[in-house]
Amino acid sequence: MATQAKVPKAEGKNNHDNVDEQADKEQQEAIEQIDEVQNEIDRLNEQASEEILKVEQKFNKSRQPFFQKRSELIAKIPNFWFTAFVNHPQISALLTEDDEETLQYLTKVEVQEFEDIKSGYKINFNFDSNPYFENEVISKEFHLNDTGEPSSKSTTIKWKPGKDLTVKSSTPSKGGRKRNHDEGEQETFFNWFCDHADAGADELGEVIKDDIWPNPLQYYLASEIDEDTGGDLGEED
Amino acid sequence: MATQAKVPKAEGKNNHDNVDEQADKEQQEAIEQIDEVQNEIDRLNEQASEEILKVEQKFNKSRQPFFQKRSELIAKIPNFWFTAFVNHPQISALLTEDDEETLQYLTKVEVQEFEDIKSGYKINFNFDSNPYFENEVISKEFHLNDTGEPSSKSTTIKWKPGKDLTVKSSTPSKGGRKRNHDEGEQETFFNWFCDHADAGADELGEVIKDDIWPNPLQYYLASEIDEDTGGDLGEED
Ligand SMILES: [Ca+2]
Ligand SMILES: [Ca+2]
Ligand SMILES: [Mg+2]
Ligand SMILES: [Mg+2]
Repeated sequence: MATQAKVPKAEGKNNHDNVDEQADKEQQEAIEQIDEVQNEIDRLNEQASEEILKVEQKFNKSRQPFFQKRSELIAKIPNFWFTAFVNHPQISALLTEDDEETLQYLTKVEVQEFEDIKSGYKINFNFDSNPYFENEVISKEFHLNDTGEPSSKSTTIKWKPGKDLTVKSSTPSKGGRKRNHDEGEQETFFNWFCDHADAGADELGEVIKDDIWPNPLQYYLASEIDEDTGGDLGEED
Repeated sequence: MATQAKVPKAEGKNNHDNVDEQADKEQQEAIEQIDEVQNEIDRLNEQASEEILKVEQKFNKSRQPFFQKRSELIAKIPNFWFTAFVNHPQISALLTEDDEETLQYLTKVEVQEFEDIKSGYKINFNFDSNPYFENEVISKEFHLNDTGEPSSKSTTIKWKPGKDLTVKSSTPSKGGRKRNHDEGEQETFFNWFCDHADAGADELGEVIKDDIWPNPLQYYLASEIDEDTGGDLGEED
């Protein structure tokens, strides 16, 4: 901040130039001193941010073994992640019928916050071998560089012939099912892996990181759409 | 969370009831174990929040002497707070001509976060003796009770006769200036002290606490509206 800051002239009643000048000088000094105090406050704010970051890093580390254990348990439950995603209102709204078929092969989801937390995170999706693509893991990661510029990048999906869900199917692929989508851009969850336009505020990335990952069980259990149970959901009071 | 959580039936290929039952039982156990792991994660999250709160409380305390020093310096500058408020776009937009006259008597602004931070904050406005009201201090404070319910309350302003800015002036008060406001509810900054409808997200309160209070000098110096300096603002490159 400039220390040559201009002092708005006080609306005092004294018109003598000397007195006026003296008042101006005192005010200028006060402003410079406020500026110094403000620098001290800023320094404390930075220290506070650093200490808070350290606490967050420490707890990120202590949470890891529990996330690990949770992943092992989730692996025992068929379609856990598919169910959690389908039960999540925001994610469910993005899923086409083809997406839902594809996500039945999703075996594991993992969110990794980078060591320093500030610099970003990565989401890994593990898939069983499936008719759609070759990849075993598809990831999308979000980075903030030193100047705070956001960016994202993803695994390139190796679609099997005629199975690319992100491509318009105006001409039915040879031997493929005829899909009943309209012409125009093909809507699919998998477009998210190609979309790096809003890396600083990726809505789906943040829903997965901040809403689902902290507690996916609540979405798995919130099975509004569970079709084969009918009325046997137990007591409703 | 209910530990009697229902297991969505796996879409397995085995139709033998025994195997199906065994799988259901294993999945139910896995869900219960996930629930336990989730409880551990929740516990860590609470611990993290508590530690972060302690860091914030510690730094709130270390900032106090600097805020105190800053207040003493600000007191040396006539119309510091008036200028900072008038230079702040959101606050400036709220100020009528009468408000601006009144705020010339504002000598001190103070934001106090309550000891535990979570439970709220209080803003004090100190005034010199003035033609508008009797109060030396007018405060508004915001509280969150134990269940997270927000509320706010303010000092009752003791307006001098005919000076209440919050009252419609459809009939000019005896000896008062005729004001040129339209009929209808009287707009004024001071209505804020009577408005407790949005205590949980009080826009003006939060602007003062989170934007102005951390660094009022920047607004004091950002004198776009400084009228009596004309072209002598110094180098413009
Ligand atoms: Ca001036
Ligand atoms: Ca079921
Ligand atoms: Mg699974
Ligand atoms: Mg002042």
